[in-house]
Amino acid sequence: MKNIYLLGTTGSIGLQTIEIILKYPQKFNVVGLSFGATKKEIHEELINKLDPEVIHFREANNFQEKYPHKTIYYGEEGLLQFVSYPKEGLVVNALSGSAGLRPTIKAIESKKDIALANKETLVMAGEIIKRLLKKHQVKLFPIDSEHNAILSCLRGEEKRDIKTITLTASGGPFKDLAKEELENVTVREALNHPNWQMGEKISIDSATMANKALEIIEAHYLFDLDYKNIKAVIHPESIVHGMVSFSDGSTKALLSSPDMKMPILYALSYPKRYPTGIKELNFDNLALNFVKIDEKRFPLIKLAYYVGEKKGLYPAVFNAANEAAVKLFLKEKIKFLEIEEIVIKMVQDFKDNIIKPTITDIIEISKEVERKVLSKYGFYY
Amino acid sequence: MKNIYLLGTTGSIGLQTIEIILKYPQKFNVVGLSFGATKKEIHEELINKLDPEVIHFREANNFQEKYPHKTIYYGEEGLLQFVSYPKEGLVVNALSGSAGLRPTIKAIESKKDIALANKETLVMAGEIIKRLLKKHQVKLFPIDSEHNAILSCLRGEEKRDIKTITLTASGGPFKDLAKEELENVTVREALNHPNWQMGEKISIDSATMANKALEIIEAHYLFDLDYKNIKAVIHPESIVHGMVSFSDGSTKALLSSPDMKMPILYALSYPKRYPTGIKELNFDNLALNFVKIDEKRFPLIKLAYYVGEKKGLYPAVFNAANEAAVKLFLKEKIKFLEIEEIVIKMVQDFKDNIIKPTITDIIEISKEVERKVLSKYGFYY
Repeated sequence: MKNIYLLGTTGSIGLQTIEIILKYPQKFNVVGLSFGATKKEIHEELINKLDPEVIHFREANNFQEKYPHKTIYYGEEGLLQFVSYPKEGLVVNALSGSAGLRPTIKAIESKKDIALANKETLVMAGEIIKRLLKKHQVKLFPIDSEHNAILSCLRGEEKRDIKTITLTASGGPFKDLAKEELENVTVREALNHPNWQMGEKISIDSATMANKALEIIEAHYLFDLDYKNIKAVIHPESIVHGMVSFSDGSTKALLSSPDMKMPILYALSYPKRYPTGIKELNFDNLALNFVKIDEKRFPLIKLAYYVGEKKGLYPAVFNAANEAAVKLFLKEKIKFLEIEEIVIKMVQDFKDNIIKPTITDIIEISKEVERKVLSKYGFYY
Repeated sequence: MKNIYLLGTTGSIGLQTIEIILKYPQKFNVVGLSFGATKKEIHEELINKLDPEVIHFREANNFQEKYPHKTIYYGEEGLLQFVSYPKEGLVVNALSGSAGLRPTIKAIESKKDIALANKETLVMAGEIIKRLLKKHQVKLFPIDSEHNAILSCLRGEEKRDIKTITLTASGGPFKDLAKEELENVTVREALNHPNWQMGEKISIDSATMANKALEIIEAHYLFDLDYKNIKAVIHPESIVHGMVSFSDGSTKALLSSPDMKMPILYALSYPKRYPTGIKELNFDNLALNFVKIDEKRFPLIKLAYYVGEKKGLYPAVFNAANEAAVKLFLKEKIKFLEIEEIVIKMVQDFKDNIIKPTITDIIEISKEVERKVLSKYGFYY
């Protein structure tokens, strides 16, 4: 029985994680649920259904009176206490954006393994996370379907035999539009992903390919590979999720229907494989296409390699600028193409890099970049 | 340093094996070379280049005088002494057809691991081979690209998680022709495989899909799977060689350029991977297609499942009928479509199955079927 702490319970990954956990009551036990700003009724329903020992809410409420025997924490600091709760287990970090960083660190420090859907954690502070994982002998399993696929392809393989890894990208909803045609796309169009049902932030990131850009940086830290050995390619069918090419000329690929329950369960059960009940692939009539990413059309891909190689605070600047720009786009304060323009501008303007930053350095620069971007567009927080 | 005994030295697989061995002189040492009916000059050149301790020739010659310090064997029985040569090593069995069976058995009995290109060995006597491998604690590595790919996909995986395996088939040179159009295809057309450079027998087998049929039976024994869990699918590009589908809904695939040096080297170096120097795959513009096999168009596929399930002598009957029919076709004694007609007829007519046959039973029925087929067409041997 594996104890599970779930962060981002009512998000897309959170709810799918619960679906899986409920399918395997003999394998997983929900110890903790952390809730964001969704409805009270949903919180109550999930608490009653899953009966966690410890609960965290982003905002204050009267649940402690309702559930006097449960440990309840509130707010940003409460989340850190939540992941430090003194019972061993696996923390599923399905938070969105840079809010995921500090809870990940605290979870590692309290010796809990991590199933990570929050790629921003590794993008912002990959070096620090790697050091902490080693220090506390904690394991981290990626939930991102691409990295999860690569984890699967690496089973039984030797590090020295890896030549390159390839992350596939659907290309998002605007793959077939020319740059000019992107000028006036709406939020609604950008949220309409062709293959995956996902949260808002990641859906927009998928349309700009910032998502693949972040994943390239994530892969660098997860698999300890040079950037030149990390590739990305457009694969419109989203059937092949990741590939590993070996020194002998062979390439191993992981395929599945595009359903996040597969990588979520694999991250939770690793190295075991449990049936997910997702739709089986049918090879009786299947076409899998791979197309080069046009770096002019998707400039954030090239920028990811640039900030990745620069190291230090650069990836955090990229991430914070993107996060803020996506917020502005979702609020209809900027146009779609302004997202990448803002990210490029913030990276170009950044001067004071620190090669070995602390977590405080990273959080400070992230807040500074976010403030710059948001305030410029008259959006204060 | 691994000692290598090579059977079928001057065939397609044999020569590619030598190419690889010469690339890794610090890894492999040729102890033995066995030669078929090719030219004396080629034999001499390879003996001088590779300097084996022991040599076998199918036919008598004067090489013992030329090489007084080498151990030389001749003929069918000599081949069994050759593989029993008292020096440990790996036997690469690249013989064509049923001639490969007895040397494989003798090699196992003399505790030499096997790299097997001769699928007929497993088709004819899979149960016996499996028993002998276990008894003598000998390992067998498939060279067939499909099975080799599956071996690669199974690294680090658990048997219980395997749901199905899928062998890919190029469809051969006549994939796009209707059955009627096959009536008058020539030997030359049948030998012209679109993707692979191979020997004559396997090229014809590829055109009739007898090759895939034999591989289905081979896979049953190699991977210890029920026939219902072994699938085959047409994949015209010959880039994906084999796939394993797991209980969690994921499928692992092995891809490479169609070059036999990859699987040969992997069978020789397993579990290590050495660089092969084969052309890397380029995912910048690649399409991979999968199409259901039409069992009416390729009836030997269905027949393979039938003889496989029947067990005992049935697979040997299928194999012997096919081998004889291919001989007749290559000699232009029968038309292309008669190959499958003969195989179907011989299987239909077979009555006296033995569920647990001995090697003698298997060899006798194979000879009997071959005699029946060849004599009917006035071709005696």
